[in-house]
Formats: sequence, structure tokens, C-alpha cells
Amino acid sequence: MSEVMEIAVRAREASRSLAATSTRQRDRALLAMSHAIMSRQDEILEANVKDMEAARAKGTAAPLLDRLELTPARLKSISEAVKGLSLQPDPIGEVVTGRRLANGIQLTQVRVPLGVVAMIYEARPNVTADAAALCVKTGNAVILRGGSMAVESNLALTRVLANAATGAGLPDSCIQSIASTDRAATDELMTLHGYVDVLIPRGGAGLIRSVVDNAKVPVIETGIGNCHVYVHESADPGMATRIVVNAKCTRPGVCNAAETLLIDDAIHEQVLPGILKALEAEGVTICGDEKTRALGAVTRIQAATEEDWSTEFLDLKIACKVVSGLDQAITHINTYGSGHSEAIVTADYAAAQRFLAEVDAAAVYVNASTRFTDGGEFGLGAEIGISTQKLHARGPMGLSALTSTKWLAMGSGQIRE
Amino acid sequence: MSEVMEIAVRAREASRSLAATSTRQRDRALLAMSHAIMSRQDEILEANVKDMEAARAKGTAAPLLDRLELTPARLKSISEAVKGLSLQPDPIGEVVTGRRLANGIQLTQVRVPLGVVAMIYEARPNVTADAAALCVKTGNAVILRGGSMAVESNLALTRVLANAATGAGLPDSCIQSIASTDRAATDELMTLHGYVDVLIPRGGAGLIRSVVDNAKVPVIETGIGNCHVYVHESADPGMATRIVVNAKCTRPGVCNAAETLLIDDAIHEQVLPGILKALEAEGVTICGDEKTRALGAVTRIQAATEEDWSTEFLDLKIACKVVSGLDQAITHINTYGSGHSEAIVTADYAAAQRFLAEVDAAAVYVNASTRFTDGGEFGLGAEIGISTQKLHARGPMGLSALTSTKWLAMGSGQIRE
Repeated sequence: MSEVMEIAVRAREASRSLAATSTRQRDRALLAMSHAIMSRQDEILEANVKDMEAARAKGTAAPLLDRLELTPARLKSISEAVKGLSLQPDPIGEVVTGRRLANGIQLTQVRVPLGVVAMIYEARPNVTADAAALCVKTGNAVILRGGSMAVESNLALTRVLANAATGAGLPDSCIQSIASTDRAATDELMTLHGYVDVLIPRGGAGLIRSVVDNAKVPVIETGIGNCHVYVHESADPGMATRIVVNAKCTRPGVCNAAETLLIDDAIHEQVLPGILKALEAEGVTICGDEKTRALGAVTRIQAATEEDWSTEFLDLKIACKVVSGLDQAITHINTYGSGHSEAIVTADYAAAQRFLAEVDAAAVYVNASTRFTDGGEFGLGAEIGISTQKLHARGPMGLSALTSTKWLAMGSGQIRE
Repeated sequence: MSEVMEIAVRAREASRSLAATSTRQRDRALLAMSHAIMSRQDEILEANVKDMEAARAKGTAAPLLDRLELTPARLKSISEAVKGLSLQPDPIGEVVTGRRLANGIQLTQVRVPLGVVAMIYEARPNVTADAAALCVKTGNAVILRGGSMAVESNLALTRVLANAATGAGLPDSCIQSIASTDRAATDELMTLHGYVDVLIPRGGAGLIRSVVDNAKVPVIETGIGNCHVYVHESADPGMATRIVVNAKCTRPGVCNAAETLLIDDAIHEQVLPGILKALEAEGVTICGDEKTRALGAVTRIQAATEEDWSTEFLDLKIACKVVSGLDQAITHINTYGSGHSEAIVTADYAAAQRFLAEVDAAAVYVNASTRFTDGGEFGLGAEIGISTQKLHARGPMGLSALTSTKWLAMGSGQIRE
């Protein structure tokens, strides 16, 4: 049996026992995990030093090194987050709906764990602690597959967290990492139908694409955000500028940042130069269509290509297109967008209503920045990720996205006629 | 562009327009569809005769011919079902949750159509009307791929239903069938990521397996039911017999029928012979383990093989195993079951509670027949199928299983700090 298969079999077993644990047991395990991150921080930091040295030797770029690095301060913040999770309400056991049937059967639909959750992610070791804690909270066994660059850190974190959870009474193997950095191990994990109840990839477009192409287990796609801000002809120019600059510039590397600006032809000569100058002042490069470039408003500009409309720049770069009106804007967004977060700036009631109804995305905004799409901002508590698919969960996912349901039917001898 | 790709592109376009239709428009379309099934029944019946003749010429077995056949009476009942759907509440637009954020943004999560639903199913032409009507009700464009044996009937039904829907104001191409009976067309449909939002296979284990192995679009698995009835040592023997016989014999070919009987060692000598005799009286063949066979209670019995524990017989056949107690019963069910419907017969409170908590299935019964797992019986209204996966929907699926959600955020210029 392969390493991955052995891990999956143990995870399935652990998931059976986890399903019978109480909220209190799981919350105690979270506290033990939070404590262990601090009390065994030397072990974790030493492993991280190995990863950092190997990464530096390979000439890894500074931003990636920064994502990889663990420090006592970062571990403290990870530990606090795990502890915080123990204080949140438990979704497991929540009654969703129910009724008494005419034949007397009492029927109750309750939330239960999904079972075995697999996560495939890239170089940030904090995702290891985050995913493990979310799964313990929701009674799921978890199989972690981090990036090969962080393998030592991930294995150390997994060891510390799994020991703490087991010490607090949870079943062995409720938290496991795949040690092999072989690509074949990832491929195998994706195909374990019957062992993995859901696979959540967290990372760039390449990772998501590979999972969608190869997985034979249910997947929740996350995190690809080709988001737009559309400035309608009725928009207040000052509000439009503030929202575009906020959506593009506050954190250009995240999925809810804007990637394309659309603006109505009727006002582009008056309003667009001001927006472009404000963007340029923040260091943004514009990929403009012909009408945008014809304005001559900024120097940091280049010709937009067809590819730019579908690109998630994740950088201080924005595509800009002048559209004939609401219809063209909605069509453009539904054609090129990734269904993440979309905003209109408008003073027109009917335009706002049509945009809300016809734009096909997880979150649709009127007169607000796309940057608000976030579990914390939406008041959902802990966030597992942002789903860009339509099945199971859409948009920011709270704890209940890691649950399924079960119908409990209590009878007294009923048979069906 | 292939036939399937052209259909998918048109379906995606239609889904955009459908998302903007009102409940009233869609319910009117359902009435028009219901009416068209009757007014154009000659056209449908003629097509069905072609399918029946071709099937007979191939020497198709009588039960399959019966499933394939359409009659004026069957069309009337299909027409009535479509009409009935127009009277059910519309899940689209339902507010799931919402709040006003601290910054003043009004956030509302509403139900929206999934977009494009694909269905792959076997020889019953009534599924064509059923699936088309469910998708019109929920504002989804649908791509239908029926069995090749029913191709003429399916194309005729699709033409009649699509014309009626379009005539009532719905967009062209909201209901489409794939005409090619080539296996490659099915394979292509399964891989149209970005065009198909969910694929629902309805049919036997082979079809479901093929979809799980090959699909690159989100799937809802349905309909495989390896269900158990477990008779606990505290069970009332009469109740146990009634429930086992009901669960096995009322409709052995459906997914909520029982396939394995488990009984406690402590009572098997006293209670099992009576149950076996009652089953034999209904014409059931027993695949018994050693202890069951040693009873010598019935003549219609054979030795159970390892494979029998995982087999969905869909026939008057049941596997029977004597277990040491609750633990072994739960382990057996979680090992071999398909997670559909599982029942315990018991008078013991703690045994009932543990069975409900630890058996991992869509529906878990105490002292009632597994045969109740059904959207109609559960009071969910129209049923799309019975999901045996944990993601998105589990157990009988009502109309809301054909919906996704969308967050609507109404602001007044908010930007994120």
C-alpha cells in the first residue's frame, strides 16, 4: 500500500471516531494544539530554518521566502488563531430542518462532519495549522499536502498539532501530512474516491487547474479572482475613483482585488482621466483599450491584449475598457470574470438592480469595493477559503462549509405501504 | 466546434437570460410545457414507437421495454407532474441569510440558479420531461443526455418541451438534448469545465462510476443504495420481521430497498428463523453466512461471498450476517454500505442513539423501514434524485438542490481600510 493510501485509510478510520466526539472534546483539543505551538516552538522553528536554507540555496525570490518564514511572533499569532477557533460556535449537530411525518416518524436533518477533508496548498506553513484547526473544530479528519518548499515546517507542525490533539483525547491520525514531495503523491490523493470526501486546493491558477483536471473526488475550487469595477454613466466621479483605487491598490496580491476597470463611453472623457491619474499615483500600470489610450491621461500605460481581460494580475496592474453601457459591461464581466467579486458604481436604481440580478458571481457590489469579500468582513467567523464554484458553497466559506447533513428518522415500527 | 460544445455554449447563453426571468414567467412556461405534452402527444408517441421497434429488434428484455414505452396514460401523468411543479414555491430569490455590516453595507445572501445543469441518464424517457421541468422551475438551462435506446423519444420530447418553453417567453436553448448517441459525446459533456455547473448522473452503478472517473465538472452522485437493516438483540421480533420484509420486498429494484440483514448473535437462534421464513414466503433468496445457514430454516439459501456484502442486488435477494453486537454492525455498515439508508430495530435507547450518531449515511432510521428515503415521503416536494455524496446535497434532493447562492452587497461608497 502506498504512503498516501495508508494515510487515507487511517484518516477514514479517524473520521469515524471523530464523528462521535463532543464539541467540548474538540474545543479542548484546539486549546491543546494552541498551547503546543508555543511550548514546542523550537522544534517548529528549527524545521523552518531547514526549509529557509534550502529555499535560499535555490535562489528563491524574497516575497516567497517571506511567505515561507516562521518567526516566534508569527507562531504566536497562529497559536492565538487556533485558540480563537475554540470559542466559536460548533456547527456540528445543528438542526437544519425537520418535521413529524404523517405516519409518526420524527425526521430531523442535522449537520455532521464531511468526513475526510484533503487540502493541497502552496508554500505558506500557516495554512497547515489553519486547516488542521478548522478540521478539528468541525470533526473532520484532515490530510494535508503542502508545498515541497515548506515540507520540513509542515511535517513539524503536523507532528506537534497531531500529538496535542491525540493527547487531548482525539483519535490518532485525525491530522496527517503527506511526507513525500513527489508529484505522484498529489496525483494519488486527488483520485481516492471513497476515502476523501472533499478536496480543497488553495493556491494559484495552475494548482486549481491541475486539481480540476485530475481529481476524481469532490472538489471545492477556491481563490481565483478576476474581479471588475464598472463605472456607470451615472456614477459619482469621486466615489468611483475611491472605489477603483481601493479595489486595485490596497492589496493587489489577493483574490478580491480588482483586475479590470470598465467605464461607460458617455462619461469616459470626463471621468476616466482622473481615475487613471489616481491609479498612476499609486504606481499602477494601465493596460488600456484604444479609447483609454487616446485620452493621453497617463504615461504608465500599454495596449490591452485579449488575454488581459482574463488575467488575474495579482499586481499593481489593471486592464481598462470603455464600454457602450450596462449591457456590454454585464456581458464583459460574465464572459471574462471568474465569478468571484464584481462591483458597479452608479446613482441609477434600475442599473444597480440589473447589475445585482444579472452578474453571475459569488459577491456582487453596488457602490462598494470588491475588497470586502472575506469571511471576517462578512461576519462568518473563521474562513476556510473563498469558493468560486456554485456547488456546496459559494463565496467566503465559514465553518458550515466543512459540514454535510444527515437525516435522522425516529420511528416506532413504521413500514411503507 | 463539436455538437456538444455548440449545445454547451448555447446553454450558457440561455442560462444568463434565465437568471433574469421571473417566477411567473417560468411557471407559465411549465404550464405551456404540460399542455404541449398532451397537444403534441402523437409526435412523441410516434417517436417512441421507433425506439420500441428498434429495441424489440435487438431482443431487449421485457422489463427494459416496459421502462422505455410511452402511452397516452403515461404522457398524461408526465404532463400532470409538470403542471404540478408550477404550483410549488420557487426557491429562486429566497433570502438565505443576511446582515448589515458595521460599515453600513447591507449584505443579503439569496438563492440563484446553478446555471447550466447536465443530466446523463438511462432508458426512461420520463426523466427527459422531469429533468427539463425541474430545471425550468429553478431557472437553470439543461443539457439532456438520455440512453441511446430512447433517443427518438427524448429528441421528440425535448423538441416539444423546448418549443413550448420558448413560446412562453423563455430563452432559446434553455432545454436541449444531445442527438448523437456516440459515447464520445457523453465523455465530452463530462469535461466541459466552465460550461456545465453541475452534472447529475441518474442510473446504475456503471454509469455513476464512469461519471466519477471521467468528469471534470462538479458532480452530484445519486442513487446507489446498498442499505442494511440491523436487528439488535433488544428488538421486538414481530417489528423486526415487518421492517425487514418491507425494506426488502415492496420494491426490490429501487435504491432505498434493503440489501443486507444484520442480526445479533445473542438472538439469532430465536429470531432469525422467523425472519428468513417470512422472506422466503415473499420469494427472497438468502445469501447467508455460516451461522445463518446452520439454522437450516429455509431452503432458498446460498453461501454469502465477500462480494455479496457490497452488492446492490436490486432483486429479491438479501445477504444475511450474524454479528456480535452493535459495534460490529456499525463497522460492517460503514465498511460495506453506500451511505444511502440504514436502519436499526431496537428497544434499547443507548443502542438507538449510537446507531444514529455513528452510522455514516444520508438517512439513518430507528424502528422504521429504509423505504421511506424519498423526497415525497420526506415532504420535500419534487425530487431530483437521492444524493449519496456529502457535498452540496445529501439524501433526497428537493428543488433547492438545483440552486446556488449569491451575496448581494448594497453600499454607499464604502472602501476597505
